[in-house]
Amino acid sequence: MAVIAIFGAGAMGAGIGRRLVEGGATVLTYLEGRSPATRERAEAAGMRPASLEEMVAADIILSIVPPAEAVSVAEKLAAVAAGHGKRITFMDCNAISPKTMGEVAKRFDPQHAEVLDGSIIGMPPKPGYDGTKLYVSGDAGNRSGILAGRGLDIRRIDGPLGAASALKMCYGGINKGVIGLGTAMMLAAIRSGADQSLKGELADSAPDLNRKLSLGIPDMYPKAYRWVAEMEEIAAFLGEDDPASLIFRGMAGLYRKVAEDRNAGGELAAQLDGLLARE
Amino acid sequence: MAVIAIFGAGAMGAGIGRRLVEGGATVLTYLEGRSPATRERAEAAGMRPASLEEMVAADIILSIVPPAEAVSVAEKLAAVAAGHGKRITFMDCNAISPKTMGEVAKRFDPQHAEVLDGSIIGMPPKPGYDGTKLYVSGDAGNRSGILAGRGLDIRRIDGPLGAASALKMCYGGINKGVIGLGTAMMLAAIRSGADQSLKGELADSAPDLNRKLSLGIPDMYPKAYRWVAEMEEIAAFLGEDDPASLIFRGMAGLYRKVAEDRNAGGELAAQLDGLLARE
Repeated sequence: MAVIAIFGAGAMGAGIGRRLVEGGATVLTYLEGRSPATRERAEAAGMRPASLEEMVAADIILSIVPPAEAVSVAEKLAAVAAGHGKRITFMDCNAISPKTMGEVAKRFDPQHAEVLDGSIIGMPPKPGYDGTKLYVSGDAGNRSGILAGRGLDIRRIDGPLGAASALKMCYGGINKGVIGLGTAMMLAAIRSGADQSLKGELADSAPDLNRKLSLGIPDMYPKAYRWVAEMEEIAAFLGEDDPASLIFRGMAGLYRKVAEDRNAGGELAAQLDGLLARE
Repeated sequence: MAVIAIFGAGAMGAGIGRRLVEGGATVLTYLEGRSPATRERAEAAGMRPASLEEMVAADIILSIVPPAEAVSVAEKLAAVAAGHGKRITFMDCNAISPKTMGEVAKRFDPQHAEVLDGSIIGMPPKPGYDGTKLYVSGDAGNRSGILAGRGLDIRRIDGPLGAASALKMCYGGINKGVIGLGTAMMLAAIRSGADQSLKGELADSAPDLNRKLSLGIPDMYPKAYRWVAEMEEIAAFLGEDDPASLIFRGMAGLYRKVAEDRNAGGELAAQLDGLLARE
């Protein structure tokens, strides 16, 4: 029977865990020091609490944590893998740049671990939603095959370690960038008395984009604080030599402003909502 | 009979001129020092060459020139308007920020001229295309009414001088910003071996956006050099206090890179075309 370990039982980790359990796998997770809410979420998903030693004995170990924790999770597991008899398979599934992915891989001794690059696109799986995709690169040996056929959309990329991370950066940059552009220009239009005409012009000449912004901007407010770090990671991914890195430093600043506004009562969000609700 | 003067007989000025001629107006234009190509274009559109004195005697004078020339055109006309018996009506229709629009207005003595803020959204009018819109703000007296009913879509905004310019900045920022995001991230994906999966993911989960990028990115190459200045104008419009101004400084750098690539043979454009053509 397939044993899959997931480090991280947040909304995404637990959502994927539940799918794998429903798909017939035993799913372990490490809950040491986690909150009662996380423990409950993991339990509800059918995941089993396990020690680090039990985790590294699984057929594959997935890391699904906030980007800032990716390297320390790798360090923790690498230390345990070194003392384990068999070579482990570890997949980092986090929203990190290819460079950070390289840092993650470097934490492991290749004798002790095979490291795969994963990235998740879409929302966490839930009943009625099957859009979650797990892209995998650097997996010539198809180690990720054990995840297939269990209700997840697993897509191997014919690219090196880092390609799946790059995909996540690029896709996120476009999608979250579009929401950022809409937010920035709608706020500017509100300040300038051009808001109604901007909304009308978008509805008229770019209805798809108008719909995407009307749904996506309010969805973004509670996530804005998290997107700050993601935008900075994309800027670092592009690198100082690419003029586009400045675009994402600007996006990080914009999302910081939205996050701060939210903490201060959400005046800007209310202005945007007023405009977006208008037909 | 309505007499309309258009300063600038480029593709947009001449396209609008032709519509107004077809709509029954006499359309004057100033061709001093212009190229034979511009003279031919103006003539083909049915516009009549006129002196500056004849221009300011028209019922309304439109300025439709590259953004960098907007202020000097205003200066030229203001000098002639000062010596003219009647108060003139002048509308700046250029892609300039509200602040630059204020500079344009300041060139005129209010005793000699009523100044309106116009902005054009869409391509130049042509047979079969009626999408060109001329937005007008600061026009409480409906001076722009003389343009209505002549095959152009004239839209008065209930806002001050500057609101129409702001609309153009905001709309252009979203539209040209989306193209810039797609360009930047596709180039990064190509560098990282994630290009095929990015294209596939966009086609899959954002088909409208995918279509917009597939058409809009190749369309952009020849205009990229012009968009550099437009992005810088949007950054200035947002102002240093707005973190989003950095987004558009980055966009300006990106479009400069694309323009330079084009001058150097178009290697990046060829890479993008290869990816965009893929289904």
